[in-house]
Amino acid sequence: MMPKLVIVGTVALDDVTTPFGSVNRALGGSAFYGGIAASYWTSVGIVAVVGTDYPEEGFRILEGRSVDTRGIERSQEKTFAWTGEYTYDLNTAITRDTRLNCLLSFNPKVVEHYPAPETLFLANIDPEIQGRILDSLPARPRLVALDTMNYWIEAKKDALLKVLKKIDLLTINESEARQLTGEFNLVLAARAIRSLGPSAVVLKKGENGALVFYEGGVFASPAMPLEVVKDPTGAGDSFAGGLLGYLTVHGHQSPEFLKQASIIGSVMASFCVSDFGVAGTRSLSPEAISGRIRDFGDLAGFRRIDYEERRL
Amino acid sequence: MMPKLVIVGTVALDDVTTPFGSVNRALGGSAFYGGIAASYWTSVGIVAVVGTDYPEEGFRILEGRSVDTRGIERSQEKTFAWTGEYTYDLNTAITRDTRLNCLLSFNPKVVEHYPAPETLFLANIDPEIQGRILDSLPARPRLVALDTMNYWIEAKKDALLKVLKKIDLLTINESEARQLTGEFNLVLAARAIRSLGPSAVVLKKGENGALVFYEGGVFASPAMPLEVVKDPTGAGDSFAGGLLGYLTVHGHQSPEFLKQASIIGSVMASFCVSDFGVAGTRSLSPEAISGRIRDFGDLAGFRRIDYEERRL
Repeated sequence: MMPKLVIVGTVALDDVTTPFGSVNRALGGSAFYGGIAASYWTSVGIVAVVGTDYPEEGFRILEGRSVDTRGIERSQEKTFAWTGEYTYDLNTAITRDTRLNCLLSFNPKVVEHYPAPETLFLANIDPEIQGRILDSLPARPRLVALDTMNYWIEAKKDALLKVLKKIDLLTINESEARQLTGEFNLVLAARAIRSLGPSAVVLKKGENGALVFYEGGVFASPAMPLEVVKDPTGAGDSFAGGLLGYLTVHGHQSPEFLKQASIIGSVMASFCVSDFGVAGTRSLSPEAISGRIRDFGDLAGFRRIDYEERRL
Repeated sequence: MMPKLVIVGTVALDDVTTPFGSVNRALGGSAFYGGIAASYWTSVGIVAVVGTDYPEEGFRILEGRSVDTRGIERSQEKTFAWTGEYTYDLNTAITRDTRLNCLLSFNPKVVEHYPAPETLFLANIDPEIQGRILDSLPARPRLVALDTMNYWIEAKKDALLKVLKKIDLLTINESEARQLTGEFNLVLAARAIRSLGPSAVVLKKGENGALVFYEGGVFASPAMPLEVVKDPTGAGDSFAGGLLGYLTVHGHQSPEFLKQASIIGSVMASFCVSDFGVAGTRSLSPEAISGRIRDFGDLAGFRRIDYEERRL
């Protein structure tokens, strides 16, 4: 059976240090985090590449979540490796080392493995490759989402602008949105991005949640304030996974489903940051997910307010 | 008739420069901003001091909102004057000059003017004075709220801790909460503050809204993303005014009213920042307020989500 949601991104080995501990060669990467988070909502396939040093445990975890791993190539190089650190300001990762290794020659084969995904998530990779993938598909997926980063905005802006024209939804953080558009004000930046192509823009603000801009409105999706935040690595990818998993089931045309989907994204991100790597997301019970969704209802829900000016 | 909500704070003349313009000797101050915002919800009296240079227009604006100004003393000194600047990061004010002038000898007379307020808001002034006011009242108001700032946490921590024991609600920003408690994590910082006295803590996060911590929960109150933010001066005071005006009417014991009140705070703050001084809040129509409340429903409201794990 073909997965409905296909994620093209990275599978990585991460060395991460936070004030609350550290891990070496933790299983990570955008497609890995995103695929696991999305797997609670829809069927998922991953297109990525791993090297000779990649532990079989990574495949076991994905398969434990029924994620289709046929699209994960095995290279004769080593696996993409990232070393990062967080201080108490857990919003910003400090990159200490990046070894692209097998990513350097990564040529994702989407159409070969999954010719007709309903949703395609082009996670943060070279926008030239993102564009090539889109052009290779015989039919446009119903929903195409894309993530990017400061490096591509700087180094490959033309390719990025070209692929932006063809997508439905962009996930981007505040500073990247400003960098891409030259607008400091986030409402204007989001509008500028929407004029470049995507009808929905999800502005990621870390522990301050996300703003979802769509035709005619904006939704403030809160992040859960947590007592224990061990490792923010993968939070954005888990958010995207939950968001897109939910949208794959419900469609992305209705603002209401976009809102709900971003809450689901925040639910998955809240599980992600509570532990290192995918320890917080790899084996969630339906009860845990339902409970966290209810927590978000308490966190963000309020009853209708009627204004009636006081009588003096 | 006695006002239900009494605000003790400053009335000031502000010189403000933002990327979108500047104003000289704009009518401002915590009690001024807070009183105007609260006046849409309940009856308000102000205890403050002005100098010989204070323009009558300030009184006219307050009286236009039916704010009781009998508690505003006239000093023979000059009015408290603040000079501040904002860069594109509108979250942080850069203070260029502070002339305390008549504030230096300010000895607020609350009991003399308003012996039995239902709600007392001790806006950001010397915590020794805040404590003295509370002790002077024959009966404790139903709701006592307090605001403070980094300067008092540094210079008068003992007096601040003493008054915190006696209040119901504290408004404080993120860095001040961390400074006061030594906890970086905001959930832990809020818990530590609640253990010092106030049952509710409103953590102000500027354009990222506010977190309201109460017994048994937390509410994420979003800020409205605005295309035009001309001047953030007074946003926190307008937020507090709306919040406390609403709580004066509805009581502060129920989490639901705390949530709604913080939305009303955000409504008033959103009007405040849209223009310089109190131009955005001084003459709002009921329709404008109702409309903005509805906008917040769209911004923050989402329908109930049920989780049902996909069938593979």
